Amino acid sequence: MKQLLVLNGPNLNRLGVREPDVYGNATLKDLEAMIQSFAERTGNKIECRQSNHEGVLIDWIHEADKTARGIVLNPGAFTHYSYAIRDAIASVSVPVVEVHISNVHTREPFRHHSVISPVTSGQIVGLGLHGYELALQALLEIKKEE
Amino acid sequence: MKQLLVLNGPNLNRLGVREPDVYGNATLKDLEAMIQSFAERTGNKIECRQSNHEGVLIDWIHEADKTARGIVLNPGAFTHYSYAIRDAIASVSVPVVEVHISNVHTREPFRHHSVISPVTSGQIVGLGLHGYELALQALLEIKKEE
Amino acid sequence: MKQLLVLNGPNLNRLGVREPDVYGNATLKDLEAMIQSFAERTGNKIECRQSNHEGVLIDWIHEADKTARGIVLNPGAFTHYSYAIRDAIASVSVPVVEVHISNVHTREPFRHHSVISPVTSGQIVGLGLHGYELALQALLEIKKEE
Amino acid sequence: MKQLLVLNGPNLNRLGVREPDVYGNATLKDLEAMIQSFAERTGNKIECRQSNHEGVLIDWIHEADKTARGIVLNPGAFTHYSYAIRDAIASVSVPVVEVHISNVHTREPFRHHSVISPVTSGQIVGLGLHGYELALQALLEIKKEE
Amino acid sequence: MKQLLVLNGPNLNRLGVREPDVYGNATLKDLEAMIQSFAERTGNKIECRQSNHEGVLIDWIHEADKTARGIVLNPGAFTHYSYAIRDAIASVSVPVVEVHISNVHTREPFRHHSVISPVTSGQIVGLGLHGYELALQALLEIKKEE
Amino acid sequence: MKQLLVLNGPNLNRLGVREPDVYGNATLKDLEAMIQSFAERTGNKIECRQSNHEGVLIDWIHEADKTARGIVLNPGAFTHYSYAIRDAIASVSVPVVEVHISNVHTREPFRHHSVISPVTSGQIVGLGLHGYELALQALLEIKKEE
Amino acid sequence: MKQLLVLNGPNLNRLGVREPDVYGNATLKDLEAMIQSFAERTGNKIECRQSNHEGVLIDWIHEADKTARGIVLNPGAFTHYSYAIRDAIASVSVPVVEVHISNVHTREPFRHHSVISPVTSGQIVGLGLHGYELALQALLEIKKEE
Amino acid sequence: MKQLLVLNGPNLNRLGVREPDVYGNATLKDLEAMIQSFAERTGNKIECRQSNHEGVLIDWIHEADKTARGIVLNPGAFTHYSYAIRDAIASVSVPVVEVHISNVHTREPFRHHSVISPVTSGQIVGLGLHGYELALQALLEIKKEE
Amino acid sequence: MKQLLVLNGPNLNRLGVREPDVYGNATLKDLEAMIQSFAERTGNKIECRQSNHEGVLIDWIHEADKTARGIVLNPGAFTHYSYAIRDAIASVSVPVVEVHISNVHTREPFRHHSVISPVTSGQIVGLGLHGYELALQALLEIKKEE
Amino acid sequence: MKQLLVLNGPNLNRLGVREPDVYGNATLKDLEAMIQSFAERTGNKIECRQSNHEGVLIDWIHEADKTARGIVLNPGAFTHYSYAIRDAIASVSVPVVEVHISNVHTREPFRHHSVISPVTSGQIVGLGLHGYELALQALLEIKKEE
Amino acid sequence: MKQLLVLNGPNLNRLGVREPDVYGNATLKDLEAMIQSFAERTGNKIECRQSNHEGVLIDWIHEADKTARGIVLNPGAFTHYSYAIRDAIASVSVPVVEVHISNVHTREPFRHHSVISPVTSGQIVGLGLHGYELALQALLEIKKEE
Amino acid sequence: MKQLLVLNGPNLNRLGVREPDVYGNATLKDLEAMIQSFAERTGNKIECRQSNHEGVLIDWIHEADKTARGIVLNPGAFTHYSYAIRDAIASVSVPVVEVHISNVHTREPFRHHSVISPVTSGQIVGLGLHGYELALQALLEIKKEE
Repeated sequence: MKQLLVLNGPNLNRLGVREPDVYGNATLKDLEAMIQSFAERTGNKIECRQSNHEGVLIDWIHEADKTARGIVLNPGAFTHYSYAIRDAIASVSVPVVEVHISNVHTREPFRHHSVISPVTSGQIVGLGLHGYELALQALLEIKKEE
Repeated sequence: MKQLLVLNGPNLNRLGVREPDVYGNATLKDLEAMIQSFAERTGNKIECRQSNHEGVLIDWIHEADKTARGIVLNPGAFTHYSYAIRDAIASVSVPVVEVHISNVHTREPFRHHSVISPVTSGQIVGLGLHGYELALQALLEIKKEE
Repeated sequence: MKQLLVLNGPNLNRLGVREPDVYGNATLKDLEAMIQSFAERTGNKIECRQSNHEGVLIDWIHEADKTARGIVLNPGAFTHYSYAIRDAIASVSVPVVEVHISNVHTREPFRHHSVISPVTSGQIVGLGLHGYELALQALLEIKKEE
Repeated sequence: MKQLLVLNGPNLNRLGVREPDVYGNATLKDLEAMIQSFAERTGNKIECRQSNHEGVLIDWIHEADKTARGIVLNPGAFTHYSYAIRDAIASVSVPVVEVHISNVHTREPFRHHSVISPVTSGQIVGLGLHGYELALQALLEIKKEE
Repeated sequence: MKQLLVLNGPNLNRLGVREPDVYGNATLKDLEAMIQSFAERTGNKIECRQSNHEGVLIDWIHEADKTARGIVLNPGAFTHYSYAIRDAIASVSVPVVEVHISNVHTREPFRHHSVISPVTSGQIVGLGLHGYELALQALLEIKKEE
Repeated sequence: MKQLLVLNGPNLNRLGVREPDVYGNATLKDLEAMIQSFAERTGNKIECRQSNHEGVLIDWIHEADKTARGIVLNPGAFTHYSYAIRDAIASVSVPVVEVHISNVHTREPFRHHSVISPVTSGQIVGLGLHGYELALQALLEIKKEE
Repeated sequence: MKQLLVLNGPNLNRLGVREPDVYGNATLKDLEAMIQSFAERTGNKIECRQSNHEGVLIDWIHEADKTARGIVLNPGAFTHYSYAIRDAIASVSVPVVEVHISNVHTREPFRHHSVISPVTSGQIVGLGLHGYELALQALLEIKKEE
Repeated sequence: MKQLLVLNGPNLNRLGVREPDVYGNATLKDLEAMIQSFAERTGNKIECRQSNHEGVLIDWIHEADKTARGIVLNPGAFTHYSYAIRDAIASVSVPVVEVHISNVHTREPFRHHSVISPVTSGQIVGLGLHGYELALQALLEIKKEE
Repeated sequence: MKQLLVLNGPNLNRLGVREPDVYGNATLKDLEAMIQSFAERTGNKIECRQSNHEGVLIDWIHEADKTARGIVLNPGAFTHYSYAIRDAIASVSVPVVEVHISNVHTREPFRHHSVISPVTSGQIVGLGLHGYELALQALLEIKKEE
Repeated sequence: MKQLLVLNGPNLNRLGVREPDVYGNATLKDLEAMIQSFAERTGNKIECRQSNHEGVLIDWIHEADKTARGIVLNPGAFTHYSYAIRDAIASVSVPVVEVHISNVHTREPFRHHSVISPVTSGQIVGLGLHGYELALQALLEIKKEE
Repeated sequence: MKQLLVLNGPNLNRLGVREPDVYGNATLKDLEAMIQSFAERTGNKIECRQSNHEGVLIDWIHEADKTARGIVLNPGAFTHYSYAIRDAIASVSVPVVEVHISNVHTREPFRHHSVISPVTSGQIVGLGLHGYELALQALLEIKKEE
Repeated sequence: MKQLLVLNGPNLNRLGVREPDVYGNATLKDLEAMIQSFAERTGNKIECRQSNHEGVLIDWIHEADKTARGIVLNPGAFTHYSYAIRDAIASVSVPVVEVHISNVHTREPFRHHSVISPVTSGQIVGLGLHGYELALQALLEIKKEE
């Protein structure tokens, strides 16, 4: 059975290091440990990756079409302008759930608009790191339904 | 211990009756049964209500400030213009998670903007009826953290 | 055979009392008498209702799905912002014709846009109280065609 | 007694030939026959004309000021930009009712706005070819009132 | 002699309970007591009402046309979208003064625009609960002038 | 020596017949007589033409490149959308002065913008029929300077 | 005890002379007499000044920081663009209440927006010359509270 | 076998005469000779027409539905506002390729938007007179594919 | 008989000194000499003034209400934002003709909009210094008509 | 003699694999084979490259300034926001022709605008894979002319 | 050799007195002392002036064309609307460097736009009082280059 | 003591090669030599880097948080859309000064807006290569202050 993929976009490698009032104190490592613990608890294989490079994220999404049965994607700031990532998602058949740690609707206006959302299955926003677990559950549910 | 409250706004009493391509075949009754099953499974008390009247929803939100420890709110079309519901949420301290059954970002432009989101804890969008369960989990998690 | 329903929205109970330069001198009662006379002349059963409450109008539209074979709706000021009424119409299969007594396009800019029109069968605008009769004829014609 | 005039604008000579999903199968000839049958039934003289030329439509509107007691106008695509036709209507005293066969509010955004509406007596939209008959009735009613 | 009417819109029943940094610590009761004291001091009859229901506020405004000689209205969040309340005010001849407790121009952009203001006699904004007294004085002055 | 050309666009044949509050009581004939009197007084040959057809105006502008030494153009409603007339002017070397009888800036917003102005030598607006004489003087002056 | 200052901006020296339908028949002198009568009645020292010069108004606001305990300001047309006056108010600690004689929301769109409002304590709009008295009362109240 | 049709819109009869920095020195005659040479070289029958009249272009497009197997259209300035030409193209089944001689995206903003493009098969922009040949090739290719 | 007044706004004292490609080589002195020559030729008294101070221009407009029978105003850059000058003109009954030396519609977008135009009798734009003479003639004509 | 370069941007490696209704069934390999066949047929050297990385495309464009005599560029989704690619093209002297396989004007609004077009020689849009051949021909023609 | 001129616009005389969180504690005097110390250190003559009057700043800029070899200008709030100051700068040949003490891009939206910038040599923003020294250095460098 | 870092974004490797009218003739090498000479003159260690890859610039900014005491950043075209670089700067505590060689406010509209500015300490715009030296001085000053 294919694995689930968790992709974190630009600056999420800085998680926990800076702006803890927005993102909390947990680091990317903490997040990935939390996800692995969820993987074990639910008997799934989950792989976590992070990149600050738009092209790398696109390559990973393409690759996932063959190797994964679902993607949890936090596109970071690419959320707001990367039509290339949007097209990458539209070009694969693996379902994608978009996650944002903070409630973007209480922040700068440019963060209120996602060019990614129209091509994802759904979005989970503002529910902290726990949002990743909810997104993984949603993916498992999507698979079950089909 | 206080109960959780699930509030459905205008036209959600029509769930399953019409537009099944957008909202699926399950009825409001089915949704409420699913939520009660979740309540039992997780040992929580959950009450479900629905109204087509903005003023009634506002009254319920005010009342919940004393009686509930969390609200899952699907504001239906009020999402897009009811600043009165927004202010009602801002006037209470009980946390609110906003849910939308369909991926509103693939629908008409007026559905892309929520006047409610800035005063909720988070949003779960496009993940079907399962989104209500994820929202209830999120509320339980918020309570645990505090 | 099911009846036809004429629904008048907010402030139409003030018809004839105020702003006669915009709406004429006939009262809501006069309008309803005119409609009953049309009903008799054409051998149809027609019921007239008016409410200033958005939620009540939504409830009536839902109910009409079973009890009426057509709705003539003058949504009053709700025309311009009630996405909830729009969704109510979209959730029923009974045809709706939208009527405005005055030519809204010669008035304030906010009156030029209807959020209701995309979900109605058609609109009759600026033709005075006579517009209700034309709308009822249109509904009878729609039924005949199907 | 002066006649009624039905003016059809650009591309309405293509009625029934193409895009039958939008405009139905009836041709311009069928429409004009339907209108003549209405003329006979109601004892009125009605003349039908069609042109793809904005200037010709303006000339006809000017001319009608002396020869007609009402105009039913379907301006076709000129609806959306011909301020010259708008000014032509404003320059005559004969009443004009604007007709659109399809519900323009469910089509492309540019079709939602009419530069003609503010100078017409009223509009009938989305009610098919039957809308022409309703418009003619409206004109007869306007005349009666005066 | 007819009474004065003070109408408070949605969420003003929460006054003093929450967001004291915006609205102060006085409750709706305190406000109404302050108004009654003003009534006694100036020898006027003043009635205070509050509702979270748009339709109820419309009904009250209609009713006031016969029973009141002036209305002080704080429309709460309805200020920003209730064209139905606007039309209700336009449909009565009793003068209305609009009051906002906080300086809305230092808050969220959506609060900067009132759809109600063009049909009221005037507005008093940002001057706290005292603004209600100033509005009542203004109404008494308007009456005197006529 | 080449003549001067005065071109009047759509609906200016209705001058004096309708909307005298906007355009005065003088007819197109009166205007043309006034212009001929100016021609005689100043010893110039001036030809006046009017058309409701955009294409005809374009043809006349092209033709004028050889036969006229200046054009006074009142484009009527074409002012606001005829990029084709704009391009026609840009394609000739004969100078053009744009005239509007009424002060367009006190009228509907769509009349505030001219797509023609950027390719004309200048504009004379709101000075009544006298504006045509001023425009002719301006053309004579432009010629003198070169 | 410091005095109160009433500042009138550009064109308010024309009060009563022109546009009496908008501003009434009372002159600036009448207004200032009314204010002095209020001063005497309430035992306060009030000084009135008027200028058509933005820079002079700024100088007066700076100066008032030391010499006045409150400013009533009618910025006239500067309301809509003088960010310099806005900054002047932000640079002093003396409270300012903004007054407009007419209901600006029923006039041209440019008059609906004030760049001054976000830095004033409050606004009194549309209540005629009486608005100045209400503003002075509001200032006295603000002082009392502190 | 049906011919190909090349339609040139307003002001293209001025080609080569004026603005050679934008459009080059070749005249409409030169262009048509170039096209005839292409016709001979490729063994196709091609007819060239030009008009400054919107209505004439619409008539030609309608007529082409029966007589041509493809249209190359340079709509000139009509590109930017002629929804009537757009509808004419939508009403025929013959394929249309839109051509612009200059790179419209380096010119005035109004030239960046085409109301015609959504109903054509494709566009060739900025490649000079050679663009007509490329468009003709494209039409031949479209035919071959079907 | 009252004099005519020519008011030049900010930076027009720099005429001829700088940007001769836009404004020509004539200086303000040359312009004023030209105007005096016109005054003598036509037997009128004309006074010319220039100021870079908005307040000074307002004071002069107020003063002119008693002393002048017409104003030619070139508001310079105040054209685009001085609502205070607009109100000054609205507050006087002396007619004002607005002049711009260059064709503002071929320059930066901010120069395309005049906040002054709606309160002037008319505008003369792009016709160089000669525009002042045309404006004076227009004023003389306005006087004659009344 | 320098070669021609064909650059394909993000997600064009997915050609033929997904969304065949938009892009057809041919793969990137098929496209490149078609281009090589064109190269042989016309006796030119043509190199094809594809990347999902914006920076790589920029590097290739810089490099081409020395090594290529023309670039055919399909920028994929970078079309709509990559000002960096725009600047890269502006920084080289080799001509670039922009190609889009589908008619972008019938798709989502964000696809209607290209930030690249103003710095390219021309665009070929909506003509399928054949568009690449037309673009190569255009480049050969551009070279011939110089 | 000509001096350098430092011009401070409206409200900069309040420097250090108020809003020290935005502008710091140094007063205008401190700033001018700092500038004089720079003048001595670098062997230049520098004059500092401040005014709250737009017209005075314009007069000074005109005068500087003869007397100064460079201007450092902090236009204060005039930055955002004074097209008259913009035109004054455009009318002189002395180079101007624009300075803002605070980072205007982190403040209210209206502060993000400068109408002055397009006519200055450059801008130095957000670097505190030190920005004036950097601006003076920049001016010295500009002079050296020429 | 930590070094200073100078980061140049996309296309700045083309400096001096192309568009010398905008950027001058100096190459990136010349700029870096100039910066090293400044480093030696002021006794600082400064490292210069350039990349056309957004992801590489983000990685360098993250890395600099530990290794540099200040960054001078010319983001090239990323200025206008790279919210990812903006977030990278927000995620580090090292101060950043933004530099633009040309006066972006005299160029295309898209260049007038920087998404980077709100998270930098300040901006130096339009002052040529010398701007880099001023930015380095500003950074040294910032360090001194802390």
